[in-house]
Order: sequence, then C-alpha cells, then structure tokens
Amino acid sequence: MSTPLRLGIAGLGTVGTGLVRIVQTNGALITRRAGRLIEIVAVSARSRTRNRGVDISAYAWEDDPVALARRADVDLVIELMGGENGPAKALTEAAIAAGKDVVTANKALLAIHGQALAEAAEAAGVALRFEAAVAGGIPVVKALAEGLAGNRITRIKGVMNGTCNYILTRMEDAGLPYETVFEEANQLGYLEADPTLDVGGIDAAHKLTLLSAIAFGTRPDFNAITLGGIEQISIEDIRAAADLGLRIKLLGVAQMTGRGLEQSMTPCLVPADSPLGQLKGGTNMVVIDGDSVEQIILRGPGAGAGPTASAVMGDVIDIARGLRLPVFGQPAHTLEAAFSAKAMGSKPWYLRMGLLDKPGALAKVAEALGNAGVSINRMRQYGHQDTRAPVLIITHKTTRDAIDHAIALAMRTGVVMGDPVALAIEED
Amino acid sequence: MSTPLRLGIAGLGTVGTGLVRIVQTNGALITRRAGRLIEIVAVSARSRTRNRGVDISAYAWEDDPVALARRADVDLVIELMGGENGPAKALTEAAIAAGKDVVTANKALLAIHGQALAEAAEAAGVALRFEAAVAGGIPVVKALAEGLAGNRITRIKGVMNGTCNYILTRMEDAGLPYETVFEEANQLGYLEADPTLDVGGIDAAHKLTLLSAIAFGTRPDFNAITLGGIEQISIEDIRAAADLGLRIKLLGVAQMTGRGLEQSMTPCLVPADSPLGQLKGGTNMVVIDGDSVEQIILRGPGAGAGPTASAVMGDVIDIARGLRLPVFGQPAHTLEAAFSAKAMGSKPWYLRMGLLDKPGALAKVAEALGNAGVSINRMRQYGHQDTRAPVLIITHKTTRDAIDHAIALAMRTGVVMGDPVALAIEED
Repeated sequence: MSTPLRLGIAGLGTVGTGLVRIVQTNGALITRRAGRLIEIVAVSARSRTRNRGVDISAYAWEDDPVALARRADVDLVIELMGGENGPAKALTEAAIAAGKDVVTANKALLAIHGQALAEAAEAAGVALRFEAAVAGGIPVVKALAEGLAGNRITRIKGVMNGTCNYILTRMEDAGLPYETVFEEANQLGYLEADPTLDVGGIDAAHKLTLLSAIAFGTRPDFNAITLGGIEQISIEDIRAAADLGLRIKLLGVAQMTGRGLEQSMTPCLVPADSPLGQLKGGTNMVVIDGDSVEQIILRGPGAGAGPTASAVMGDVIDIARGLRLPVFGQPAHTLEAAFSAKAMGSKPWYLRMGLLDKPGALAKVAEALGNAGVSINRMRQYGHQDTRAPVLIITHKTTRDAIDHAIALAMRTGVVMGDPVALAIEED
Repeated sequence: MSTPLRLGIAGLGTVGTGLVRIVQTNGALITRRAGRLIEIVAVSARSRTRNRGVDISAYAWEDDPVALARRADVDLVIELMGGENGPAKALTEAAIAAGKDVVTANKALLAIHGQALAEAAEAAGVALRFEAAVAGGIPVVKALAEGLAGNRITRIKGVMNGTCNYILTRMEDAGLPYETVFEEANQLGYLEADPTLDVGGIDAAHKLTLLSAIAFGTRPDFNAITLGGIEQISIEDIRAAADLGLRIKLLGVAQMTGRGLEQSMTPCLVPADSPLGQLKGGTNMVVIDGDSVEQIILRGPGAGAGPTASAVMGDVIDIARGLRLPVFGQPAHTLEAAFSAKAMGSKPWYLRMGLLDKPGALAKVAEALGNAGVSINRMRQYGHQDTRAPVLIITHKTTRDAIDHAIALAMRTGVVMGDPVALAIEED
C-alpha cells in the first residue's frame, strides 16, 4: 500500500459536507478500492463554527482557500465553492500552480475558463477532474471521456437541470401555471440565488459546454450554445404538447452536423413515451449517440449532497489510483474552436402564437411562414380568448434560422399578439 | 507521445471484426484521446481466409492463439473467442504468464475462473479488463468499479440478456406463444449455439456474477446465483402481468440483505411504466443503488459488433493511458466469499397454477400457502380450461424459501395440475 492521498476541501456547503460524510463513513471500503488511504487533512469554508452535522475538528482549518491550496500537506484540492470567478478561480489556479491535483464540481468556472485552466493543469502535469459538475451523481464525464472513447460521438442530448424538470413536470401533473410552480420551487429551496441560472438554462448550458468539449474535441465555449429558458412555457404549451403525445423538456442538444457543431439548451418537445419524455422531477438524463456504441442512456439524480459527493469521490479515487488523462479527454492544445453551426440542424417545430381575431389573420401568418421557406405540417386554431385566437402550428423539418426568419416575417404582418413560442421537436 | 500500444486480437467473429473496424476507422481520434498510437500487430482466428469485410493483411497471423499471446511484439492481448474453458482460458493464462495486459469480452470465463485469473493477473502486475463482457456497449463495469467507487452499493438490478428481452417483449406485442417467438429468434440468429445459455438465464447470470463481485467485494461465484429461465413463461403469464400493470423481465437482482448477499437471475415482474418495464427488444439496462448516489440507471445495446467493440476499445484506451486498478475493483485476495443469503429477501410473489376443477381444490391450495406462512393478497380464478381451473395468486411480501415451501405443500394436495409458475414482483 502506497502513501495516503491527502485532501484539502474548499467549501463545506451541501456537497462538501456530503463528501466529508462519505470519507468518514466508507473509509475502509474506499481504502480497499483505491489501494491507499484517502484522508482529509484541511478544510476551508465561510464559517468555521456552523453546525453541519459532521465533525470537522480533526482537520486543519484555513480561512483563506488559496492558503489551503498551497499547504504542503495537501496533495489534492477539492473545490466546492462555486462561482465562475472570485475565490473558486483563485483557488483552482493556486492549486495548479502549486502542483496539486484538483477535483471540482464547478460547471460555471470550467464552462467559462475551462480552456485556460485545462492548459495550465496539463502544463503543470496535474489532474483537473469535474465529474460532479455535470448531471450530479451520473458518471457521464467518465462514460464519455473513457468508456466511450473509441467512438466518434455524433450527438449528445440531455436533461441536466433538475429544477427546470421539476417545474415542467409539476406544471403538467398539477395543471398549474408556470408562475405558481416557480414560486413553489423557490419555497422548496430548489432555485439558485439567481434563478435565471436555472430557469434561463444557463446552468444546464454550462454542463453541456463541458460534455461537448469531451465528445467533439472542441474548446469549451459557453457562448456557442443557443440558449432559451423555460419562463416562456405556459400551461397551454404543456397541454398542447400532451395532446400531441409530447412533453416539454429543457433539453440540451449538441450535434455534429455536416456544417459544424450545433449546440442548444432550449425547451424542446420530446415523445411522451421516450426515456426523456418519461423523466420526472429532479432526475437528470443524458443520451449519447456514437458511431460504434449506437445509443447509451444514463439516468440519475442531478443534484443533492449524496449524489454530487459520490461523483467527487469517484474522481478522488481515480486520482488515488493514479489515473491520468487530459482534462477534456484529449490534450487541451489539440482542442479545436468549434465551427459553430448554429441553427443548421433540420427538425420539425412547434409554434404557438396568438392572432388578432379578424378575417385573413391566419392566411397572413401562413404566407409569412411560406416566404421563410417553412412548410406547415399541421395547424390548429384553439377557442378564442377575448379578441385573441391562439394558433398552434407544427412545421415540417426546418432549421432554427428559418423558424426565426418566419417569426420575424409573421410579426411584421401586424396580426400576431404577444410573443410566439417556438420549440424544436426532438423525435428520435 | 509515448511508444505505441501493440494489440494482438484472438478471435475475429462479430466483435473482433468490429474492433478491427474501429481501430482502422477512428485511428487518429483514438490516438489523440489515448495519447499514443494504438495499433493491431497480430491476429488469430479459426479461419484466415474468411471474408470479414475488413482488411487484415497488414497484421501478422497466428494459427495458435497461445502463440499470439506470447509474441514479443504484442503488449496487449484481446480475447474475443468465448467459451469458459479451452483456447480462451489457455490464451488468457498464457498472456498473463507472459506479462501482457488482457482485455476480454468473455463473461463465462470470468464468471467461472475469474478469481484465479484475477489473482494471477494481479500477481503478474498486468491488467485484466472485461467491460465488453457485461451489457454490451454500456460502460457499467467502469461506472461501478470507478465512477461509483465511493459508494457502498446496496443493490444491482438488470436486464442483461437481449435475446430473452426480445422474446418476452415480442410475445407481449404480438400475442404469440413462447415456442413461436423462440423459433423466430432462432431464425434471426439471436440465440447462442446452445440456447439454454440465453433462455436458461446462464449468460445473464454470468454477467451478474461479475457485477456483484465489483459491487459487493465478493469472489465471483456463479453458483451462488439462483437461476431461472424464461422457458416456463406462457402468454397467459404475459397477459396476466399486463392486467396487473406489470411486465415480465429476465431480471438479475443482487442485493445485500441483513443476512448476506442474495443473487438471482430469474423472470420477475416489474411495473410496466418503470424504466425496466419500458425496456423493449434487445436493449440492456442496469439499475444501481448506492448509499450516496441513490440510483443510477444505465441503458444501451446489449450486444452487436459495434457496441461490444466499443466496450473493448474503452478498456484498450484505459490501458493505453496507464490506468491500473484491480480486476474486480479491489485486490482479488481481499474479495470475500459471499455469505450467500439465497432466498432471504422479502417481496410479493406472483403464482399461477392449474387446479383440478373440483370443489375444495382452491381451499386446499390456500391452506397449503398458509401452512408455509405465505399470506395471500389477491387471488383470481380464470375461466376453466377443460378440467383445469387456472388460478392466479399475488402474495404479500415473503421469501423465495417460503414460496418454494408453499409450492411443495400445494403439490402434495394432489389438486395442482402441471408445474406452477412463481415470479417475484420487483416493485421499486
């Protein structure tokens, strides 16, 4: 048995506390599996005295996380503070500079600064691992970067924000409007301090950024992702989708097209009886298509102390065992700028809009779609609401560009009231 | 970039050919990911001249797989011949003795000889990896041995034989009897040369043996698994299950109970709307419960050239990257003999039996169950068939032992015609 692996943990919130609990509870098991003792030697957090339900008195305390990263008795720094800048970034950079391995759960940090941090880590010869940053307890980073490494990945799809999935499934199950369920989720503590991170799709898009880099060998580039939130989804959309045998999910899609990599994190429609459509509540799911493996689906809890700490611990044990691989699965300097093919993939679309209740309104909208090259598969007019006639259109396969153009033309007719809702239908 | 990793492949059937195709097609991608060239240098198979659709003329040929294993220019031996004894075992032993790493897709070999081979490999300091042996393309060995290594695993459930799942779903979808669908599967080439390996649950139990060893730190012990095949399942069972909102799956369950590890591979009933219940055709699924991670579900193709070769390639790339871990996730000499708790877990059971159509028959069976301590939750008598009255019983939670005892008592009453069918109901 080799020397112990000594951990320094920065951040003792839900996940940090969960990690301490795993080390304290499953220590003997983990030692057997890792082939060496894994011990916590130092911790850093905002409050030293807060009652966390775990005993941290045996660990050295550092007020300053950067000081933690530089301690001579720490081999591996675990960053669980969060935030794309500030202390998390300073800590990670300091750890790498000090020649320490790093495990982080910080999706925002890596989605924004991942390329620079990966280059620094690889130059320093240290590990930088982030299983816990994506889809909670699901070992999807490992599956992509290791298990499926023989594959040319062709597409990734995923539900990777449990809060949004909770809101959408609760709206459907209880027949409640978005605002009511949003408030419920807030009361339950499901939302980030800035809820836009959740419902705006930003948190999930951070995660997709990281998976895309591994899958497609592209530099992590958050800005290459077409972003849409779930705030626009009404109970009418949920019901209309159900009528069509579909369900609305905040769905990440990263797909290699003939013209480059198309990435989006937007509300989409999926078949209600598909694995994605069946996904309820806070559970996450990632669907991976590869040239050899065909399709793999991974499902599990997307957040929470236990599942996220489980993912952190998996990375820690890998490092204890001596596993070394590039941060995004191939050397960072070989990652290529994604030729971004925004909006090139061809799919059927769902359009819902309110029209002025007067003769010829529908014809004008249909003409606008035709002028944008968007052809209509099915159209349905709902019962009138005041002077507004809600219209639902399912198009034949077309691109996001064409849909955007069609909506712009439709808006110019002057018969469309309010903002139209446009959702891609992800059939397969 | 370090030196190339040189492969010797023994067995060029479906999977071996698939592996050659991956190396030839995705070579550049794999080199980028593995950090070094991975090249095939030698192959061995039964026929040198058979047209496989891939060009093997650049590789050295060995008639004798053992000679392949001993070649000085081979670093890593890939065993894709199959069979629990004979050439596959000789090859694997020779490779380990020659200090070569081994990757195998051979579940039978490892389920029977895994302990000895793991001890030999660990003593020799070589890797012995087997992702492709379990659930085809699904990286479940990696998930268990690495990603979830921080967890105390509490249960594994899985559908791990695609042929059985094909037969069962086809029976339900087409309303056809077992014999007809079995013959269909045979015509389609889905069955092993000895079909008992598939429909008798043996192949799937081999796989469960391997997952159990990793999950619970027990010596791989095929004989510790309670085995049942799907030959006994009739279309009546499929229909009765559907009426109850359930579906029949050949389900592996390995569960740590208070009295030891209980393992079975038997037809079970699962909720029709659960992920396991929704699984159709040849797809595999493994459900893993751990103390931290809660529940992870992995799903994907259970067989086929591409998916299985993808799993082999994942292992090869791990070895190229220098990953070293014990064969079953902890040193083989620390694995413990499973204290086998056959039949201790408590579950509701489904019983179907034909009774003699005469007064008092049902009462006698009910009394027999009561005498065995099995309490009846629901009972239903179907329409008579000739002189036989089919009866369906759902019990309250009880053990397999109690059910076996109840059936033995019922048989002694003389009113039961033919063999009763007893299936555990796996509700959660």
